[in-house]
Amino acid sequence: MVAESIAYRQLEDLYARYAEALDDGPLEQWPEFFTENCLYLIIPRENVERGMPLAIMRCESKGMLYDRVTAVLETMMYEPRYLRHHVTNLRITKCDDTEIEAVANFSVIEVLPESLPRILMVGRYLDRLLLESDGVWRFSERHCIYDSTLVPNSIIYPV
Amino acid sequence: MVAESIAYRQLEDLYARYAEALDDGPLEQWPEFFTENCLYLIIPRENVERGMPLAIMRCESKGMLYDRVTAVLETMMYEPRYLRHHVTNLRITKCDDTEIEAVANFSVIEVLPESLPRILMVGRYLDRLLLESDGVWRFSERHCIYDSTLVPNSIIYPV
Amino acid sequence: MVAESIAYRQLEDLYARYAEALDDGPLEQWPEFFTENCLYLIIPRENVERGMPLAIMRCESKGMLYDRVTAVLETMMYEPRYLRHHVTNLRITKCDDTEIEAVANFSVIEVLPESLPRILMVGRYLDRLLLESDGVWRFSERHCIYDSTLVPNSIIYPV
Repeated sequence: MVAESIAYRQLEDLYARYAEALDDGPLEQWPEFFTENCLYLIIPRENVERGMPLAIMRCESKGMLYDRVTAVLETMMYEPRYLRHHVTNLRITKCDDTEIEAVANFSVIEVLPESLPRILMVGRYLDRLLLESDGVWRFSERHCIYDSTLVPNSIIYPV
Repeated sequence: MVAESIAYRQLEDLYARYAEALDDGPLEQWPEFFTENCLYLIIPRENVERGMPLAIMRCESKGMLYDRVTAVLETMMYEPRYLRHHVTNLRITKCDDTEIEAVANFSVIEVLPESLPRILMVGRYLDRLLLESDGVWRFSERHCIYDSTLVPNSIIYPV
Repeated sequence: MVAESIAYRQLEDLYARYAEALDDGPLEQWPEFFTENCLYLIIPRENVERGMPLAIMRCESKGMLYDRVTAVLETMMYEPRYLRHHVTNLRITKCDDTEIEAVANFSVIEVLPESLPRILMVGRYLDRLLLESDGVWRFSERHCIYDSTLVPNSIIYPV
């Protein structure tokens, strides 16, 4: 239990820093939370439950994650906004010396100029992490499964 | 402090699994988080503050909780929806070898088809847990006190 | 890591009790979470990013915090409401024997009579805590940086 507690504390810290990179920047840090070969998905829960693989964002390597960052920062046109992630209910479902599987709930609150905050998305992370040779845990898989049948047209940032 | 830390970690895990049973199912697991004789209430904060016992859901045994599950899954008519619980600010207020008292904040986000997420309910859990002979902590009391004077007409699922 | 874990647990408990004093009262406890000389700010993120010091609430001593409590409880006119804080993503950024720096995300949900809950404010705490001679950690600085360009006209309670 003590060893698992330490792993849990490390994850809490990792999940908080991950959200911080998205909410407060710099966004360029975001791909560094993943292994070279990785799978990052944003996918509606309805598709997961129906066994349909269609995701609204899909990246299969750290390079693709960096491309996404470039798109957000340089290419895409969108109204400026603030985002705030709340990550709760973190739970380790599998834990050994080099691999962890975990789940957590997330909500993404969006604040547009001159508007009150609104909930953009809620859902669940299904994660797999590997301990890499530099002693750092990184996501080899992160499935962001959001509770909606409506595809929000403003998913610009990663989750 | 170390013993209390371990109790806290166990509670965090328990609260996360409880929310998972409600959000992601199977809902049949929900009564298993309670002792045979138990008290489960969903009650508006206004009533608690005025000393009025009227609750919008009240179950006094594990059997009544199972009846509630049956009602949700088989009897009641309602539009399908997704729910997402965020449990935060967990705090142990009393802790000995076989009994824990704890408080936590909750929010329940509801996602209806073709709609953006909205907050259905926020409030506070007031809990009492017992360590049973099989080594599992279970709720002997869970008071879900929600911050509202308005009774939402869509409290179908437990909180 | 074990020592840091214990510090983290103490902070989690402190942050939960702080939110409880605001949400469930008594509000008179709120100033007790601060050192005699302290800095408490509620400031829009936009101002922080532009290097503008203008805050919508600024208290520079425990006495000023008590004055604020008196204003909320006795002087100001406003519609009664319930508040609920969710504090997530707590992270210690500096930790030694007598001083801790930490960040966390917050959301404040407001419930007005006969209304559904709505998000009043989301943002980030930037905190500095000192271990005082009575063995209690207290905030010497708490910057509540909220994600908005819109100044809410209903910031009555502290955050």
